[in-house]
Amino acid sequence: QTDTTAVNKIKVDYTKKGFTFSTADDNYAMHIQSQIQFRFFTPTDQSPTAFDDFSKPDETGFKIHRARLKIGGHAYKPWFKYAIQYDYARGTLLDFRVTLDRWDFFKVELGQWKTAYSRERTISSGKQQMMDRSIINRAFTIDRQTGVAFSGRVFPETLADFTYHVSVLTGTGRGATRNDDSHLMYVGRLQWNMFGRELEITGSDLKFHDKPTASLAFAAATNRSQFTRFSTSGGGNLEGYTSNAPGQYRINQGLIETAFKYRGFSWQHESHLKKITDYETNTDKTLSGYYLQAGYFFSNIADFVPAPLEVAGIFANYTPDTDFSNSYEQEYGVAFNWFFKEHRNKLTMEITRFSYKTIDNISDNQWRFRVQWDISF
Amino acid sequence: QTDTTAVNKIKVDYTKKGFTFSTADDNYAMHIQSQIQFRFFTPTDQSPTAFDDFSKPDETGFKIHRARLKIGGHAYKPWFKYAIQYDYARGTLLDFRVTLDRWDFFKVELGQWKTAYSRERTISSGKQQMMDRSIINRAFTIDRQTGVAFSGRVFPETLADFTYHVSVLTGTGRGATRNDDSHLMYVGRLQWNMFGRELEITGSDLKFHDKPTASLAFAAATNRSQFTRFSTSGGGNLEGYTSNAPGQYRINQGLIETAFKYRGFSWQHESHLKKITDYETNTDKTLSGYYLQAGYFFSNIADFVPAPLEVAGIFANYTPDTDFSNSYEQEYGVAFNWFFKEHRNKLTMEITRFSYKTIDNISDNQWRFRVQWDISF
Amino acid sequence: QTDTTAVNKIKVDYTKKGFTFSTADDNYAMHIQSQIQFRFFTPTDQSPTAFDDFSKPDETGFKIHRARLKIGGHAYKPWFKYAIQYDYARGTLLDFRVTLDRWDFFKVELGQWKTAYSRERTISSGKQQMMDRSIINRAFTIDRQTGVAFSGRVFPETLADFTYHVSVLTGTGRGATRNDDSHLMYVGRLQWNMFGRELEITGSDLKFHDKPTASLAFAAATNRSQFTRFSTSGGGNLEGYTSNAPGQYRINQGLIETAFKYRGFSWQHESHLKKITDYETNTDKTLSGYYLQAGYFFSNIADFVPAPLEVAGIFANYTPDTDFSNSYEQEYGVAFNWFFKEHRNKLTMEITRFSYKTIDNISDNQWRFRVQWDISF
Repeated sequence: QTDTTAVNKIKVDYTKKGFTFSTADDNYAMHIQSQIQFRFFTPTDQSPTAFDDFSKPDETGFKIHRARLKIGGHAYKPWFKYAIQYDYARGTLLDFRVTLDRWDFFKVELGQWKTAYSRERTISSGKQQMMDRSIINRAFTIDRQTGVAFSGRVFPETLADFTYHVSVLTGTGRGATRNDDSHLMYVGRLQWNMFGRELEITGSDLKFHDKPTASLAFAAATNRSQFTRFSTSGGGNLEGYTSNAPGQYRINQGLIETAFKYRGFSWQHESHLKKITDYETNTDKTLSGYYLQAGYFFSNIADFVPAPLEVAGIFANYTPDTDFSNSYEQEYGVAFNWFFKEHRNKLTMEITRFSYKTIDNISDNQWRFRVQWDISF
Repeated sequence: QTDTTAVNKIKVDYTKKGFTFSTADDNYAMHIQSQIQFRFFTPTDQSPTAFDDFSKPDETGFKIHRARLKIGGHAYKPWFKYAIQYDYARGTLLDFRVTLDRWDFFKVELGQWKTAYSRERTISSGKQQMMDRSIINRAFTIDRQTGVAFSGRVFPETLADFTYHVSVLTGTGRGATRNDDSHLMYVGRLQWNMFGRELEITGSDLKFHDKPTASLAFAAATNRSQFTRFSTSGGGNLEGYTSNAPGQYRINQGLIETAFKYRGFSWQHESHLKKITDYETNTDKTLSGYYLQAGYFFSNIADFVPAPLEVAGIFANYTPDTDFSNSYEQEYGVAFNWFFKEHRNKLTMEITRFSYKTIDNISDNQWRFRVQWDISF
Repeated sequence: QTDTTAVNKIKVDYTKKGFTFSTADDNYAMHIQSQIQFRFFTPTDQSPTAFDDFSKPDETGFKIHRARLKIGGHAYKPWFKYAIQYDYARGTLLDFRVTLDRWDFFKVELGQWKTAYSRERTISSGKQQMMDRSIINRAFTIDRQTGVAFSGRVFPETLADFTYHVSVLTGTGRGATRNDDSHLMYVGRLQWNMFGRELEITGSDLKFHDKPTASLAFAAATNRSQFTRFSTSGGGNLEGYTSNAPGQYRINQGLIETAFKYRGFSWQHESHLKKITDYETNTDKTLSGYYLQAGYFFSNIADFVPAPLEVAGIFANYTPDTDFSNSYEQEYGVAFNWFFKEHRNKLTMEITRFSYKTIDNISDNQWRFRVQWDISF
């Protein structure tokens, strides 16, 4: 039962994706990599999710924030790709995706992975510019889902260079083993690669793009399920929602997103709107939010700055209920990234200030300091 | 601490079991493979386990049904084998088996794995003919257990060609870390390889046996524990049993099984009987069930049928309590398998009809439609 | 995206750590290994943790006690090491450690792993002399923690040959994702390598040291948290403690430890003291305990004894509360180890007698018999 399948010789390599094995005909390949994010944090690691979190006690400490096993490659044909991402620390399967990547203009993906919706969420945790995603991600992300997606890039290197994604998903989040009702989730995303060059889905301009490269994207999603938000833990509820009856909530949401990289400078921004309809109480709520993020390698303009150092900043603003637009949750962050080996070996120091105001106009602030070493091997 | 152990040169290969590494003296070998089963289902994925399940709402959706990591090989000697199967999706260990495979007539296995009892359960999920096991599997399977087994094939290629298995097990199911009482589980199985050829434990006649190959098997098991059924989740209870006191139930069960493959045609069948004694209430219950399953590659007799296509069908009948033999649970299924690359890359479309009748002679039916892509790499 | 990173040729090997891949420049290396411990036990596997456990019913059975995946190696530089240990059976991450191993006299470790405190706990489960750790381990171990450690060996091969460890940890045990309060755990350990040779952290003198090698160590730890003990499951409570309020307990503890190996003989001993202050009730409790353990390959003095056989014994004494010094928990154990291939393939038979006495001077005994096969591949 170990008869060799159509292979003369195996090539072994060390690549950006770890140790890699591939057959001579390149029909089969597999790579294995692990990743760790080790953090020190004070006074706490998690961003406050509500005003009351400001009064929580100090919980200074160290933690392994992410510990991942990544196995990927292709099988049977070079265009028949797969990617597995397993969370060692939680013991959960994050990604298991099969991609039919035969044509650039039409790819088919199936399994479980991060739905192509917003740039911030889609950027891998190991390729982020800030230490983690902004406070608005919690409310607006579609996160990982189970289903099928069709995508492609059309009219490349022209003025009409677009990347599209259409996804049909169970809509009950990561780890779904069933649907709560018969409604599926539908997500669409259209991205204009305005200079005829597609921007990679990573933070920081490590490649030092010598031609400006930018994208402008619109995305929308609709879903009816028992959940009002999604995260790595699967489906859950936003503040103010407690019940989880099957099909109780209809979510309609959309976003505008921009991104840009040029000569060590990087920019990205998203503006979100999300409407939750509760069929039990027959009420609606609308949430809005946006973030603005930029980074720069100052060594480009100042000789005394070391080349591996990037400085980045973010401002995020979240309005939990647009009917009470006086209330807000704001995040101001500054990060210093030291790239030992691109995103695969990176030290980040981050200072964040949270400023929240309730609907009763009570406001409060909190500082947070974190250091993270993110290493892939 | 990286001193090389008795090895000159490592051979790397891609085999049916994935990328494979072995030492020049063949004393050490390891292979790594992942498997995914991705499904679309409507109106639901799970077979109904009781009459009331028919009134459940529609839960159409996609899911990853199985996601597995398989690491195996041998160490120290070629006959000292091991096999690990880990479930990525649940984060649980399925198999960890060590086999002393020195003589065909006497092998010793230890660890945790699928007890050799019934053919349907023993066939790997990646080598099934139907999309999944029949409705009777839930009630009669012994599933994975922890313990020791002795097995072998005697008088090969004669009229008295038999394969035997004797297992001594903790009897508390997968993931057992202790026994509930001092009673162990004992399982015996005797299989007559009637044509002097041993039939492999897989569905579908992909090998196109040009000589008829068949088996007739009997098996029996006895166990006292707190459980009335077993599954991948471990020990559990059948309908009508709620308590789980240590040693509360004695299970005695037996089966007759036939299987046959010849020129693209495959057949298998099992007839089960199981008696549950509840020592708390001093009552007995007897369950019975059987299934009949067959498949054929019609390309053998009709040129216009594509060669990778197999059509298979199943009928299963389960009597939850033989004292109420008017009540039944029946499954009629038809599956269309398209083998891109044998069982390792296979698309299955399946239509199933469930027909259940209660002890009050109320009956109901349900249709189910599923598509599954099963891929190993 | 598979561009090769600085590598000409990959070396593949089978070593003591399993199949190993390394780049030609030795900047990158990875090894993969699995381990299983398979046990038969009667009447029960777990050591009694309290007097009442003696009256538990017989639970004879088999189990997989440990099933581990070990991935390790180095990346970017030969001295930039990592080690991952994942528990297949529980689906939990045990170790994820990064070590900057550039200088022998100053190493930095970060992540999650077994804190350098006591020898018995630090010895890997796969390299133990007895089948498992003694009864005193439960009360005194610091176990795995998340944080940072500094260590090194100074003045090697002199009379002042010392190995030191200083650790700063979150102090909430394995799997910590946050701290319960703002107090960190601090641990220090100083080991005198009295003959100028450092004793390896393993049981049994498999190397047949022909020069006497010994160590004398002192260690101390302080922590304030919600827990009174730690184990592989994370933080927990000792008998008599039920509440888990943040920062409720201050633990101060210390130990003296000796170890010695010479010509097939091995010795180790630890004496522990631990004081728990409960800030809620403003009460103190002091626990003490020690064990003495020795083993010998009698083939060295008696020709008729087979070379792979070692006989080892242990005596452990635990005083749950020094205010009631009449009460004790004692363990007497004898183990017979058969080393097929050093610690990587080892069969152990063990007989243990537990003798416990309550503070009311009621005493009882229990025998236990276990067999274990421990295999790494």
